Amino acid sequence: MNKDLYNYIIGIADNSLILGQRLGELCGHGPSLETDIAGTNISLDLFGQVRSYFQYAAQVSGDENATEDTLAFLRIEREYKNVLLVEQPNTDFAYTIVRQFYFDAFHLLFLKALETSKDETLAAIAKKSIKEVSYHWRFSSDWVRRLGDGTEESHTRVLEAVNELWMYTDELFYQTEADKAMIAQGVGVDTLALKETYYKMIGDVLEGATLPIPESKYWHKGGKQGIHTEHMGYILSDMQYMQRTYPNMEW
Amino acid sequence: MNKDLYNYIIGIADNSLILGQRLGELCGHGPSLETDIAGTNISLDLFGQVRSYFQYAAQVSGDENATEDTLAFLRIEREYKNVLLVEQPNTDFAYTIVRQFYFDAFHLLFLKALETSKDETLAAIAKKSIKEVSYHWRFSSDWVRRLGDGTEESHTRVLEAVNELWMYTDELFYQTEADKAMIAQGVGVDTLALKETYYKMIGDVLEGATLPIPESKYWHKGGKQGIHTEHMGYILSDMQYMQRTYPNMEW
Repeated sequence: MNKDLYNYIIGIADNSLILGQRLGELCGHGPSLETDIAGTNISLDLFGQVRSYFQYAAQVSGDENATEDTLAFLRIEREYKNVLLVEQPNTDFAYTIVRQFYFDAFHLLFLKALETSKDETLAAIAKKSIKEVSYHWRFSSDWVRRLGDGTEESHTRVLEAVNELWMYTDELFYQTEADKAMIAQGVGVDTLALKETYYKMIGDVLEGATLPIPESKYWHKGGKQGIHTEHMGYILSDMQYMQRTYPNMEW
Repeated sequence: MNKDLYNYIIGIADNSLILGQRLGELCGHGPSLETDIAGTNISLDLFGQVRSYFQYAAQVSGDENATEDTLAFLRIEREYKNVLLVEQPNTDFAYTIVRQFYFDAFHLLFLKALETSKDETLAAIAKKSIKEVSYHWRFSSDWVRRLGDGTEESHTRVLEAVNELWMYTDELFYQTEADKAMIAQGVGVDTLALKETYYKMIGDVLEGATLPIPESKYWHKGGKQGIHTEHMGYILSDMQYMQRTYPNMEW
């Protein structure tokens, strides 16, 4: 088993898994039919990508009992390696949009770089996903503009979300040992090289939305090492309930 | 195995289990130190009672693998027989208090009757619990008075909770087959005989709290037959997570 590659795939997949789960909570609870369906569609896109990553990770793991389902549903909290950003609660529509916006910008840049990976499977998944994620980014950045440059109420709310979630953006670029090993092999994406473009990308949108770019340099991280915020346990309780309660269940 | 007795014990225990779980969610989140500690203490009282009931139920079940823990944590949703009232969400302090108030009045009358049960174990648990539940009732009814006869805001909020939770009170008196069988044997409590006293008891408090007694005759039930509201799945997801994830775990 190539442990670094395995951990690298898990790290990518868990971001989409947990964000997809968060968006799924909102299915049927969106503020309008259009946004409800859009959020649910984004969730489904992410789960589709997750399946490809986990199928590959299961294969790489060398564990013949590993499947996309066991990886998605039967790990314990410390074994999930998603960034803290994606596990943050939906709170309100502004938070949901800003969390998506902060993630999408990164996700898009990341996939564009992953497309040139020496690992053909990862490159293929990236290529397939870029179209979807371009749409996610258009959706979330568009809503940031509408909310920021909208009513006083929407401006206040989206500003709060922009400021509160800001501290989770830096972790997107944090590199674990597995990340570094994969970058050295030409398989992984050198996220540090994306950082400037990322902050320019979200900065331009915030500016257009009449939202000041947060200045705080206080960063919160831990998820990529498996150290999560208190929200994670509740997400896993919900997400794993079926598989834990009815082991080996199938449709 | 005496199936009726087993089901009867489970029915009583599950009310305390689920209400205890709901109150436990608020530990550290009470609106003041005093109410926070009081709520947590009530939760612990209920869990203490639950242990006695489940230990007895495990013995009655004839299943040598059954323990208080398997009964508490490893059943599926339909096997929980609590009334819908106790699974309703905390919502705000007024809802938490009114849910408690509606349950405590019943619980106190129920235990006073159970104390004379021909089943000595149940009679003993009841006797031991009455002191605790008398305190619960004093606490919740006192707060209903304070909120109802308090500020405009507290009055409005508690009034909403009184009206919204009212529909769940009738189920407290519903009799399952197991209930009827146990009543016939002099073991169970004839809940119908408590009904008039119950509505007088809560009516007097509401009146003193300047809160009109709801007139609705629309009743919602199902929990005693295992048919729960949507909240139940989320409660079980949280409550069962540890035992499902780490089977046979012990402290």
